[in-house]
Amino acid sequence: MILLDGKKLNGEIADGLKKKIEESGIRPTLAIIQVGNVEESNAYIRHKKSYGERIGANVVHIVLASDIPETELINKINELNNDSGVNGIIVQLPISKHLDKNKVIESVSPMKDVDGLHSINAGKVFSDDLTGVTPATPKGVISLLKHYGIKIEGKRALVIGKSMLVGKPVAMLLLREGATVTIAHSKTENLKDVVKESDIVVVAVGKAGLITKEMVREGQVIVDVGTNSVEGEKTLEEIPTRKLVGDVAFDEVKDIVYAISPVPGGAGPMTVASLFENLVEVSLKK
Amino acid sequence: MILLDGKKLNGEIADGLKKKIEESGIRPTLAIIQVGNVEESNAYIRHKKSYGERIGANVVHIVLASDIPETELINKINELNNDSGVNGIIVQLPISKHLDKNKVIESVSPMKDVDGLHSINAGKVFSDDLTGVTPATPKGVISLLKHYGIKIEGKRALVIGKSMLVGKPVAMLLLREGATVTIAHSKTENLKDVVKESDIVVVAVGKAGLITKEMVREGQVIVDVGTNSVEGEKTLEEIPTRKLVGDVAFDEVKDIVYAISPVPGGAGPMTVASLFENLVEVSLKK
Repeated sequence: MILLDGKKLNGEIADGLKKKIEESGIRPTLAIIQVGNVEESNAYIRHKKSYGERIGANVVHIVLASDIPETELINKINELNNDSGVNGIIVQLPISKHLDKNKVIESVSPMKDVDGLHSINAGKVFSDDLTGVTPATPKGVISLLKHYGIKIEGKRALVIGKSMLVGKPVAMLLLREGATVTIAHSKTENLKDVVKESDIVVVAVGKAGLITKEMVREGQVIVDVGTNSVEGEKTLEEIPTRKLVGDVAFDEVKDIVYAISPVPGGAGPMTVASLFENLVEVSLKK
Repeated sequence: MILLDGKKLNGEIADGLKKKIEESGIRPTLAIIQVGNVEESNAYIRHKKSYGERIGANVVHIVLASDIPETELINKINELNNDSGVNGIIVQLPISKHLDKNKVIESVSPMKDVDGLHSINAGKVFSDDLTGVTPATPKGVISLLKHYGIKIEGKRALVIGKSMLVGKPVAMLLLREGATVTIAHSKTENLKDVVKESDIVVVAVGKAGLITKEMVREGQVIVDVGTNSVEGEKTLEEIPTRKLVGDVAFDEVKDIVYAISPVPGGAGPMTVASLFENLVEVSLKK
């Protein structure tokens, strides 16, 4: 089995970006807006800060109160949109429920939207217009496949999940690479058969244990974009711990398929790497 | 076999739109811009004019010289964008090669874009945002399926062709209706197997005879969006004629499948009906 090692590739991409930044003489700046203080977000932001440091980019971390009025948040984003010293802006999700997530995302300038979530960038993925910012997670999935020499053209690719964050844009990028693409979701009947007939399976549902050994076969390539916090082993003091798993029952599937990405260490680190690839790209475009 | 009769449904939709217009007291106006004088376009425009007349809408036909400079064409479109007496604007395709088709389409106000081709409307189809104008041809395909009581949710739907005009938006609309959707195209291997496993097949390639009797099975529903001009029978004077056919070898497929749309008389008239549905919708929104 080939492990699609996102963590390792994340490091190799960092080396490349570091070199690119040194050669360009431009030091890109990423602004991360955090609303409130969700512990999960803190961990993600730490990763992004350390990645930025590693490649020689500035990461500005802006923490706003969890009860900030929407107009105030949008004013802050506009300020960053207009600040020529800021190249990329991301709003760390999730944000407080009183805020309209779509409105907030749409207020980020499409040219600074290094997460690639703005509707203009999503629309460009749909229409195969290469002038936009490619959504970070989908971009990371494709980079991972390409890095490990997985042939996409002409293959049957299955995307499970039809979200705008992952499922739909991944499907469009796989289509761009020449795959025959199927999109499955909660209403799909006989998911097992649909999985079995596919050469490449990208799972982005958020349901631990969704893909079991009965559903897969030899020769398949699986990228697990799911993130689920489940109960881990108990400590010696019988205190239950939590651990992160994907949508695939990794341990039982890994010895059957040709290649698989782990969780953690697969799609997650690739998202961070792609985000900074986007940052460097938009910075050098200026 | 059930004939998915687009021509018949086109008429029923006309009756409904006529009533709607009468009741609203608003007489919608559609502007059709034609660049040059392509015979094929003339025929399409005649259909649209007569449909408009039938439902009680104004259709203004604007003919521009085939060598019109791009800026002049875009100025004309802007004029119509700003004319509150014009509710819908379509640019009849194809347009002369010296014009940038995308730029021209993007210059139509998204709110008057009753063909649903503007990137803002396409993007809304992608993100399932119902506030946009649904692209006319894809909308017509879904209306045809629904009218004949074809269940879409949970079914395996195949779209052959990945154009922005038909393939991709049809795939998104089928996904919205709950189908498991596969998108196939010129790089797809074993198209026959992919077709066989599908319950609903929408073909939009532009290749006469692409789908033959060997590829289909009982129970399938086929919508043929292809339009191909092929050699017809010779006249008594041995003069070859031309006729319009779809992508499906209709005569050999029709007795195997459960339902199929003909060409002509299927997706074509549905596009016209959907276009005027869009016109009425945007007119009443004002």
